[in-house]
Amino acid sequence: MSEHFYRNFIVGILGGGQLGRMLIQEAVNFNLDTAVLDPDTNAPCKSLCSEFTAGSLSDFDTVYNFGKNKDVVTIEFEHVNADALQRLHDEGVKVYPQPQVIRIVQDKGLQKQFYREHSIPTAPFVLVDSKADLEQHRSFFPCFQKLRRSGYDGRGVIRVDSADAVSNAFDAPSVLEKYIDFEKEIAVIVARNASGQVEHFPPVELEFSREANLVEYLFSPAQLTTRVQEEAIAIARKVAEKIGIVGILAVEMFLTRDGEVLVNEIAPRPHNSGHHTIEGNVTSQYQQHLRAILNLPLGDTSIKMPSVMVNLLGEKGFEGMAKYEGLEAALAIGGVNIHLYGKKTTKPFRKMGHVTVTDESLESARKKAVRVKELLKVTSGDGTR
Amino acid sequence: MSEHFYRNFIVGILGGGQLGRMLIQEAVNFNLDTAVLDPDTNAPCKSLCSEFTAGSLSDFDTVYNFGKNKDVVTIEFEHVNADALQRLHDEGVKVYPQPQVIRIVQDKGLQKQFYREHSIPTAPFVLVDSKADLEQHRSFFPCFQKLRRSGYDGRGVIRVDSADAVSNAFDAPSVLEKYIDFEKEIAVIVARNASGQVEHFPPVELEFSREANLVEYLFSPAQLTTRVQEEAIAIARKVAEKIGIVGILAVEMFLTRDGEVLVNEIAPRPHNSGHHTIEGNVTSQYQQHLRAILNLPLGDTSIKMPSVMVNLLGEKGFEGMAKYEGLEAALAIGGVNIHLYGKKTTKPFRKMGHVTVTDESLESARKKAVRVKELLKVTSGDGTR
Repeated sequence: MSEHFYRNFIVGILGGGQLGRMLIQEAVNFNLDTAVLDPDTNAPCKSLCSEFTAGSLSDFDTVYNFGKNKDVVTIEFEHVNADALQRLHDEGVKVYPQPQVIRIVQDKGLQKQFYREHSIPTAPFVLVDSKADLEQHRSFFPCFQKLRRSGYDGRGVIRVDSADAVSNAFDAPSVLEKYIDFEKEIAVIVARNASGQVEHFPPVELEFSREANLVEYLFSPAQLTTRVQEEAIAIARKVAEKIGIVGILAVEMFLTRDGEVLVNEIAPRPHNSGHHTIEGNVTSQYQQHLRAILNLPLGDTSIKMPSVMVNLLGEKGFEGMAKYEGLEAALAIGGVNIHLYGKKTTKPFRKMGHVTVTDESLESARKKAVRVKELLKVTSGDGTR
Repeated sequence: MSEHFYRNFIVGILGGGQLGRMLIQEAVNFNLDTAVLDPDTNAPCKSLCSEFTAGSLSDFDTVYNFGKNKDVVTIEFEHVNADALQRLHDEGVKVYPQPQVIRIVQDKGLQKQFYREHSIPTAPFVLVDSKADLEQHRSFFPCFQKLRRSGYDGRGVIRVDSADAVSNAFDAPSVLEKYIDFEKEIAVIVARNASGQVEHFPPVELEFSREANLVEYLFSPAQLTTRVQEEAIAIARKVAEKIGIVGILAVEMFLTRDGEVLVNEIAPRPHNSGHHTIEGNVTSQYQQHLRAILNLPLGDTSIKMPSVMVNLLGEKGFEGMAKYEGLEAALAIGGVNIHLYGKKTTKPFRKMGHVTVTDESLESARKKAVRVKELLKVTSGDGTR
């Protein structure tokens, strides 16, 4: 019985950022009440959710108390107190994704071991506990050192090219990972509901800004051979099935210059690599996540129209009250959909919004997206360039 | 300058129903704050808007006080106090659609005179002030008698077929309108911004439930000859331009058996005949309305995928707390998008939600929509069938 739809059914969301905001926009269609926990009283979800709690996502009591009277607890950010989620789960609260999935994703070491254990292709790695351990792994250089915990959007990652670089290395449990000479970065979002139904979205291609270490452009569909597409889909579905997630899982992968597909990272929640699905696909990643965690039949993921997503990042040199330049010019371009995240203040490279351009062909959508990126700038009124 | 996007810009919405609710879902993408006035403290917009005021939409002071500190005032329901809107306009508040447009739409007599004045084709009519006047117009029978004011969703309309029927007629200012032997009902939504840019959505076809006197199915695109399509579009654009609206205008028309296109009614706001645009078109009617009232460039209205919309009406024989039967089965059909309006209670024929089905072909979307309608029922827990 879909009781969610007619009694005061409350979805608790850990994290109040843009992913939660877009999830709530979709939850409205299902008559769901939403409660949000976030430390920032100006969080993007604040004015939209039914109930907002300001508090720490890493504190056991805060997360436990927030979750205990909710019908389902989900996340839009994975660095949350997993012990509290485990307790909630043990006491009968539905927690999706499940605490054990969140634990694996929170720790890059566990993630890598999980891939190895299930023969999921990924870059070669070794685990180290401290800086001193690096000395034993000189033969592994050059490589990345990634902190096992708390890394996010490129933070907690450095290059260790030679023995000389060890002095700058992190002195903490971390993963040493071989450089991958990749041709493309791709992503496949997979959904799985509690009944075990699994559906994937068509693969997308991601273009990163090296400077910001964030996705700059996303292209849907990815331009890949059938063989690579099938392999990426098979790998992503395998990860979702082996980890047993309920909810959606974004699987970011490298396509190497040798044509290999390797898993880079996973995220057990709506993800930047699925924003385009709002306009570009029959079912959006947000609706799909809700369907999955409510154990409803999963939606059709096929592409409606080719789409290109561009992240709207705070301009370098500006910090303070956000100001959007070039919006009118951008909106004059056909097929441009602007999503602003309601963040009052900007800073360099902060994710302030995104734009999805749909068009008859990927190439024409791409040209429009490049133009949008030239036109649209997030600065600040009191900018100090 | 698009100041709307970065200062606390407040859009005031008169009416808190489902149209306002879907407008707010879209306003979120533009970082707009929304304030809603509605007499019902359980209105569908209640939990979603930034600020909710419970109060009468027809009371001068209530509407005036609500509107005076807003940056733009708009409507999602046209039976509001137009004098208050005029005062707000006179005092410099942006009111879109403009008070004079709302006045014409509120009065079916003024609407008909407007069509006549601008040579816009419409069914033949005469205006009467009271029941006694009907006697002079016996030669006009059989016809409809429509109350000039306050008619809505078929209320305030009766048939006057013969002199015998006059005793049952309304004793109030009304329009006598000839029956139109129509083949189809069609609609074209037109948007106009303050700079005078005008864009129309592709025509749609409406199928009414005679029993409920409400739209049952909507088909996009309408199956019409090129000649009829062009004529419908030209008429709808002419109405929007002559009335000078800022905002969107839904123009409902009859296609007669003789191939004539006649204007039936207009609505200066998002409309039931545009719900499908959320999934089916590049720009939704809600985003288009916001673009128009903020004087932004209008969006691309073209069709992404054929779509069929079905209204989800309260089942006959049920009144009370709403309960949704068959949702899971409906959601298992590909391309089904459910929009529930968050109304706590149902009653026969109450608009409780809608479903839009997109598919590769209109015919396959239609079949799925018919199946959805069979599966999905709004009843009540404490139903008294």
